[in-house]
Amino acid sequence: MGLKGNALFAQSGGPTAVINSSISGAIQEAAKHKDITAMYGSINGILGVLNENMIDLNKESKRNIELLRVTPSSALGSSRHKLKNEEDFEKLLKVLQAHDIRYFFVAGGNDSMDTANKVHKLAVAKKYELRVMGLPKTVDNDLAVTDHCPGYGSVSRWLAMAVRDAGLDTEAIYTSDTIKVVETMGRNAGWITASTALARLKEKDAPHIVLLPEVPFNQDKFLSALDKVYKKLGYAVITCCEGLKDEKGEYLTSSKRSIDTDKFGHKQLGGVGETLVSIIADNMKIKARCDKPGTIQRVSGMAQSKVDQEEAFISGAMAVKHGIEGKSGMMVTLVRDSENPYKCSTGLSDLDNIANKERKVPAEFISADGMYVTDKFLQYVTPLIGGPLPEYARLEKNFIAKKLTK
Amino acid sequence: MGLKGNALFAQSGGPTAVINSSISGAIQEAAKHKDITAMYGSINGILGVLNENMIDLNKESKRNIELLRVTPSSALGSSRHKLKNEEDFEKLLKVLQAHDIRYFFVAGGNDSMDTANKVHKLAVAKKYELRVMGLPKTVDNDLAVTDHCPGYGSVSRWLAMAVRDAGLDTEAIYTSDTIKVVETMGRNAGWITASTALARLKEKDAPHIVLLPEVPFNQDKFLSALDKVYKKLGYAVITCCEGLKDEKGEYLTSSKRSIDTDKFGHKQLGGVGETLVSIIADNMKIKARCDKPGTIQRVSGMAQSKVDQEEAFISGAMAVKHGIEGKSGMMVTLVRDSENPYKCSTGLSDLDNIANKERKVPAEFISADGMYVTDKFLQYVTPLIGGPLPEYARLEKNFIAKKLTK
Repeated sequence: MGLKGNALFAQSGGPTAVINSSISGAIQEAAKHKDITAMYGSINGILGVLNENMIDLNKESKRNIELLRVTPSSALGSSRHKLKNEEDFEKLLKVLQAHDIRYFFVAGGNDSMDTANKVHKLAVAKKYELRVMGLPKTVDNDLAVTDHCPGYGSVSRWLAMAVRDAGLDTEAIYTSDTIKVVETMGRNAGWITASTALARLKEKDAPHIVLLPEVPFNQDKFLSALDKVYKKLGYAVITCCEGLKDEKGEYLTSSKRSIDTDKFGHKQLGGVGETLVSIIADNMKIKARCDKPGTIQRVSGMAQSKVDQEEAFISGAMAVKHGIEGKSGMMVTLVRDSENPYKCSTGLSDLDNIANKERKVPAEFISADGMYVTDKFLQYVTPLIGGPLPEYARLEKNFIAKKLTK
Repeated sequence: MGLKGNALFAQSGGPTAVINSSISGAIQEAAKHKDITAMYGSINGILGVLNENMIDLNKESKRNIELLRVTPSSALGSSRHKLKNEEDFEKLLKVLQAHDIRYFFVAGGNDSMDTANKVHKLAVAKKYELRVMGLPKTVDNDLAVTDHCPGYGSVSRWLAMAVRDAGLDTEAIYTSDTIKVVETMGRNAGWITASTALARLKEKDAPHIVLLPEVPFNQDKFLSALDKVYKKLGYAVITCCEGLKDEKGEYLTSSKRSIDTDKFGHKQLGGVGETLVSIIADNMKIKARCDKPGTIQRVSGMAQSKVDQEEAFISGAMAVKHGIEGKSGMMVTLVRDSENPYKCSTGLSDLDNIANKERKVPAEFISADGMYVTDKFLQYVTPLIGGPLPEYARLEKNFIAKKLTK
């Protein structure tokens, strides 16, 4: 209590639709506390600290800070830099000391929480009084402890709408493009892909098959399931995770296309959708189409979830409140208090419980055949997208009597 | 005048965000005219007529018909079927006669207008009194005569938002993913790709390079332009048309990847973005990323343009009015009456002027270097997206003085 000094805000990892809302909440809360003298923003995450690239947030207009609430992407810039050695840490501490930074707020995923944790431990070891608080952030929804993560609700809403629309497109034009594959983000955890099931309001709606990285891809099972849907409806929509692996643990894409290995030998994910298109063409002799919205899904302002945006804002504000109270080395979590009606509050967890941990989609959320999600998952994800999808017409289609055809 | 009978409505070609709005306008107008006795919808375009698969639109609720106004995709189902032979035409005429269809309204692109024109000419030749009217429809914006086409404003708004967001994503995270390629639809005409320039509100905004199929792709020029942007900003966003061809007239994608030729020998478009990623990796040793939203862009209800939706509705209603007046073998066109303020009315054109014609992006809309659009194009496209893009925060970024770094 009663620690006077400056506050530093940083954003880290992949941008999302609401990470700016988290920062907006944190900045607006910090402005209320007189212990916090100046407010700085680190440009490009931890790199901004190392390079002393920091901006004065007090010089931003109130309107700009408020507008952050609805602005996607990371307004302070992000990075994926990992602190490497003793030298990095020493530099970091020096910068914090030189600028009298006593509060350090980091919005990020599990890598970023590891960095925040290390900074916290360094400050403790060096007896530099510093309060480090994590703001949860990831479209991947793979942070441990928290019920869900800011960013996930919006990517889910976006994909629900996109897959619903792409599904209606396939249904309408199925005389020429009968199978569609939509490739979603997600390296090891299938939360994002799973959320596409929200698009399915009726049985014939897309998606019909959902392929998660938690389930090793089996080509025969896949083709047999696809064939069943296809024979029934005359069209089919598959959503698949970019991180899909086969039963040997190899990424589906890297085993198929040399283009996905770059000059440095890195296997680039993304391409699973085209691989499936190829498998479908080879085996079913059907030309499928692949939509791969890529980064657009994670960052889009087009379908921000109001619930997600609000929870992001509150988690940012709570991180500051807890910092002022004297907490450090912790992350704000989201706690689901009740399911129906959906109610959510915030909690706290030691960064040790979160840093570098990865929460995959649990078995109870995956259907028995491994190619769809369960109702329990739909219950979990539905409130996060902030209200139902927009209402569309579906014609009743009362056919008139044929006069010529027997 | 005074032709009593039934009306048939059909949708054809690729679905769009507003083709249902056109049909809603047409149906609501038709309901006002007592010469039109019953209203039928053909299921899957011209195939529905051939197969007598028609529904009774009078049995749809008013609410459902009104809701079509905001519902993307083709609610009646679409097709890409081409009428092949005399037999097809005879069957068609028989169905029209059997069901006393005297008004035939077809929403579609240049292929569909060709079909409509043929039906009109057949009826004239066979002395069957029939009024055939075309409702303009195509995201490709490549219909002749009309200033623009319903469907184009919405895909433009969607892409403007998507590319803006993907650009902010690239700008934020440029420490790891520095170059992004967004692949858009468009086989021979670059209108869709060109509209991505709407995303660029400031010089550093995406897109930085826009590659249209009207300009043969030259790898050296492209790499040199990209290098310039990249050196200046540290990141870059390219938008490219799926129908991009090299200077020999070969599709860029088909020359690079065998996967794009299917078992039937068809060259599948789509894949240009990944080809560019590969060219960038090979020459600049930089790992780029490709977003390929595919069909999501053309059909999405997420960013419907209000102007587009309204013009679609009106063009549908006008088609019916002109049919009632006695017109046949014509398509409703959109006429830009004034630029500032933007005003648009409808006109009429013979289907002969439109069927099978393709309007490419004219030279005056393409920048001198062939890798961007002109201000004149931006003036043309801006009113079609129905209002400015949502306001986002952009931090002023007043840097604080460094204390440690010399």
